[in-house]
Amino acid sequence: MTIKIYGMPYSTCTARVLATIAEKEVEDYELVPVDLSVGAHKKPEFLKMQPFGMIPVLQDSHLTIYESRAIARYISDKFESQGTPLFGKTVKDKALVNQWLEVESQNYNPCVSSIVYQLVFAPMHGRQGDETVVKQQLEKLEKVLDIYEAHLSKNKYLAGDFFSLADLSHIPYTYYLVNVAKKGDGITSRKHVSAWWEDISSRASWKTVTAKMNAKV
Amino acid sequence: MTIKIYGMPYSTCTARVLATIAEKEVEDYELVPVDLSVGAHKKPEFLKMQPFGMIPVLQDSHLTIYESRAIARYISDKFESQGTPLFGKTVKDKALVNQWLEVESQNYNPCVSSIVYQLVFAPMHGRQGDETVVKQQLEKLEKVLDIYEAHLSKNKYLAGDFFSLADLSHIPYTYYLVNVAKKGDGITSRKHVSAWWEDISSRASWKTVTAKMNAKV
Repeated sequence: MTIKIYGMPYSTCTARVLATIAEKEVEDYELVPVDLSVGAHKKPEFLKMQPFGMIPVLQDSHLTIYESRAIARYISDKFESQGTPLFGKTVKDKALVNQWLEVESQNYNPCVSSIVYQLVFAPMHGRQGDETVVKQQLEKLEKVLDIYEAHLSKNKYLAGDFFSLADLSHIPYTYYLVNVAKKGDGITSRKHVSAWWEDISSRASWKTVTAKMNAKV
Repeated sequence: MTIKIYGMPYSTCTARVLATIAEKEVEDYELVPVDLSVGAHKKPEFLKMQPFGMIPVLQDSHLTIYESRAIARYISDKFESQGTPLFGKTVKDKALVNQWLEVESQNYNPCVSSIVYQLVFAPMHGRQGDETVVKQQLEKLEKVLDIYEAHLSKNKYLAGDFFSLADLSHIPYTYYLVNVAKKGDGITSRKHVSAWWEDISSRASWKTVTAKMNAKV
């Protein structure tokens, strides 16, 4: 049965799921657009699937799941035997992928999503971004990126020598930070972070996602 | 080889790991205290294990992992065949546990940890908590708890009819919210959330953790 993904390619969380689908070489899926501009994500029918009123949502036969990182885990598990092994190959690999997924979620994303919200999504909805918040979060991000730089000077990818879901999970917000908010100096000024970003953002999987983004926005 | 957990029982994130260890009936482990009051978590030796300078950290033979939710996943995986099946029994169970772990991490914890920080940890470190932040976060938490109430009116636990890592992961911060910050009205005033909280916080696993907390604080 065809997997349905309710979402929009320009949404960072939908993009995380679409990149996972591309890495796992899943072909039998359908992207069902959710028109946020008319509040489709706040309508009763949508809230039955996702009570917080957010995209994306996955439907696979009788299973409905939300939260992009949980959806990405489900796709990685279900299609474990095909595409990129996004949790590596060993118990140690998996533990380190989980660790860096949490670092992304708890340390990296709070800064980056806040900057992107203020400079991209707030203006998109007719609100002015708060420059004080941007400054504070950029300062916090610098400290996080110092740790990434030291780590990536000894490891090609976050969890070791293989591309994983932890790397992938950083891409959508970092793409907006660098290319739309134009606040990528912290990334490009650090030798190893910059090389890592060049590598992960030039993967074929991410190119299929940006092609979808550019076709829709 | 004995698993080492570097942390303190009164730390919510250490408590999450200790509760997981108790549920999985792991006996061969050692809790190595990290004296935060003298900044032991910011010393070079500790930063080699955990560059962000936070507890807890797990060491198991040659593997070092940090981030409590990643450590909890590792313990659940390694001891899959013993204790409580914290990811349920089926692919669907696991997907829903992952979903609710993300809801905890992205929707519930940001409100609750902020309230607990302002009312418990800030005063503990000689700083006055910000009442405006507490008020804002309590309002946000109300909306989250409305969704939990509706969900728990149809499901005994978050991922269905079984206690999982998603339920467990809520316990440490909620314990502080209810028992120390004394801001548990949102929990106790909702019939199903209240019954769920009574249930999960009265498990033997959590009692072993609070016994350790009370012995140390």
